[in-house]
Amino acid sequence: MLSQRVHVDRVFHALGDPTRRAIVEQLSDGPVSVSKLAEPFAITLAAVVQHLQVLEKSGLVRTQKTGRVRTCHIEAKGFNVAERWIADRRSLWEKRFDRLGKLLAEQD
Amino acid sequence: MLSQRVHVDRVFHALGDPTRRAIVEQLSDGPVSVSKLAEPFAITLAAVVQHLQVLEKSGLVRTQKTGRVRTCHIEAKGFNVAERWIADRRSLWEKRFDRLGKLLAEQD
Repeated sequence: MLSQRVHVDRVFHALGDPTRRAIVEQLSDGPVSVSKLAEPFAITLAAVVQHLQVLEKSGLVRTQKTGRVRTCHIEAKGFNVAERWIADRRSLWEKRFDRLGKLLAEQD
Repeated sequence: MLSQRVHVDRVFHALGDPTRRAIVEQLSDGPVSVSKLAEPFAITLAAVVQHLQVLEKSGLVRTQKTGRVRTCHIEAKGFNVAERWIADRRSLWEKRFDRLGKLLAEQD
């Protein structure tokens, strides 16, 4: 339960940054090398690598080194965590609305 | 399209903070007054109000004042934006995997 919370924290922290979301958006279209990934961003390669580390730790991206090239891939794990957290909240408030609806129907 | 991006930015920025997610978690259980909401948090009422403003601007929470009491409610709009953004990414990479699967099947 605690590790689940840590994971939720990491995923939403990672997605809270617009540059990291832009990286995720690009990788959804297909794997890209780190240097190619860095091209459209007006930041240093070192800054991109740092963002990638945050994304890797949260399970949103994985990187793989073949020879001298490191390639970045999208990873579903982190997205599952974010979706689950949102779905859990939604299920709670929808249940509450259902109960409220029933109560109101009984008053009629 | 630009306003959609602004909204996505706001929602993920809002959800990127653990205190704001804890507020959202509590409000999923039902509406609460601002002062009651602030109780479990080891931060000032002013800080809670600031977090609530960020959550309101991103459509995750709405507040309503009746007399001297301001009550906070969960709001679906912001959640829809976050879910849509994640679903759009997922749909992109799943389509890509499908194409890859077909290509591999053709090679057999």
